[in-house]
Amino acid sequence: MQDSEVNELMLALRQFAKDRDWEQFHSPKNLSMALSVEASELLEHFQWVPSEATYKLADAKHKLVSYELADIFIYLLRLCDQLDVDLLETTRQKMHINEQRYPVDKVKGSSKKYSEY
Amino acid sequence: MQDSEVNELMLALRQFAKDRDWEQFHSPKNLSMALSVEASELLEHFQWVPSEATYKLADAKHKLVSYELADIFIYLLRLCDQLDVDLLETTRQKMHINEQRYPVDKVKGSSKKYSEY
Amino acid sequence: MQDSEVNELMLALRQFAKDRDWEQFHSPKNLSMALSVEASELLEHFQWVPSEATYKLADAKHKLVSYELADIFIYLLRLCDQLDVDLLETTRQKMHINEQRYPVDKVKGSSKKYSEY
Amino acid sequence: MQDSEVNELMLALRQFAKDRDWEQFHSPKNLSMALSVEASELLEHFQWVPSEATYKLADAKHKLVSYELADIFIYLLRLCDQLDVDLLETTRQKMHINEQRYPVDKVKGSSKKYSEY
Repeated sequence: MQDSEVNELMLALRQFAKDRDWEQFHSPKNLSMALSVEASELLEHFQWVPSEATYKLADAKHKLVSYELADIFIYLLRLCDQLDVDLLETTRQKMHINEQRYPVDKVKGSSKKYSEY
Repeated sequence: MQDSEVNELMLALRQFAKDRDWEQFHSPKNLSMALSVEASELLEHFQWVPSEATYKLADAKHKLVSYELADIFIYLLRLCDQLDVDLLETTRQKMHINEQRYPVDKVKGSSKKYSEY
Repeated sequence: MQDSEVNELMLALRQFAKDRDWEQFHSPKNLSMALSVEASELLEHFQWVPSEATYKLADAKHKLVSYELADIFIYLLRLCDQLDVDLLETTRQKMHINEQRYPVDKVKGSSKKYSEY
Repeated sequence: MQDSEVNELMLALRQFAKDRDWEQFHSPKNLSMALSVEASELLEHFQWVPSEATYKLADAKHKLVSYELADIFIYLLRLCDQLDVDLLETTRQKMHINEQRYPVDKVKGSSKKYSEY
């Protein structure tokens, strides 16, 4: 991961865990659970709200939602660190796969999954 | 988000959605569901595996898991774009909050939540 | 759990796991992950669909969704069995708690969480 | 759903929602999000705990976990009500499918998914 800012965050999170002797809890299995819990905390903000009303959030709600996104990113970076995954490079590869799976002329305006075409 | 690589990915994902006329589906509500689904696909790889066995994955499994991490990042960036959240800056802020919540001398070696101290 | 049908299902699921020597995998921790994965498979059916369109499902979709609900129930019963929880009795107790938390005259027509009132 | 106790709970939950004018929020889409959130609250209890330590929970923890299971069941029953699904009958059908998918002599002691055999 050559990106210096993302890499810096990852190293800071590693140090944060190390300082607290929390590395013992941070198996990929446990981290995947924690990430899933954070993803649900995000979900919770939107569960009873109509789709259209989730684009523009009130300031206090926007702040809370931003921190949920940060929490997800934190566990994502911890997982990348523990599993030695280059997140930016892998994401570029995955986007390339998605371009093959979802050619514009085939999928335009449709929300079907690639396996349904 | 000043980081050029993360920003580039975010813009590429916006274009990907635009080209396919998928922006209509990408409300924050719907994206939060998609992110949660991807988080569970990660979880699925680890559900029956002992914690200790999730550090070192076989090559094929490692590849699959990496792409799940990328999928999570993809929806995370789409959410940041739709909600106008600076992911790196917000993450730094959240890490600062976590440092206050979890002072080393209080939490060392314990996995309790800050509200339980 | 006095209800004979629910109890029968729980015992049949226990036997199913025993016959396959799967009890070794069925710790509450692992089962909670499996349940969460099934909950996301349900979510996946609805992620790009407007709320209003999820009441009446086409027959094939209704069948698939029904089986996701069954999968969730299956892991729920496995968890109740492993943790010795009387599901029906506990649910009645929880409904009683919810009645106290959400008095009709206070919450009518609002979707706020009890801690927000 | 002929089971009288489960049916009674389902009807009581319907009345609970009706009394609070909450049926407007209870689309299958929204309920699937709520169920997923509850599944993650269960997950959260176990995320940093070793598998082996999740069989025997301390009394207070057992109580909390039981209520999470009840919450999951509550949203499961709301979904069955809104989608007109007979939960017990569908679960029996799904168990029958699982028996075909996972014949004892093929899967004994293995945690692979049926599509991997």
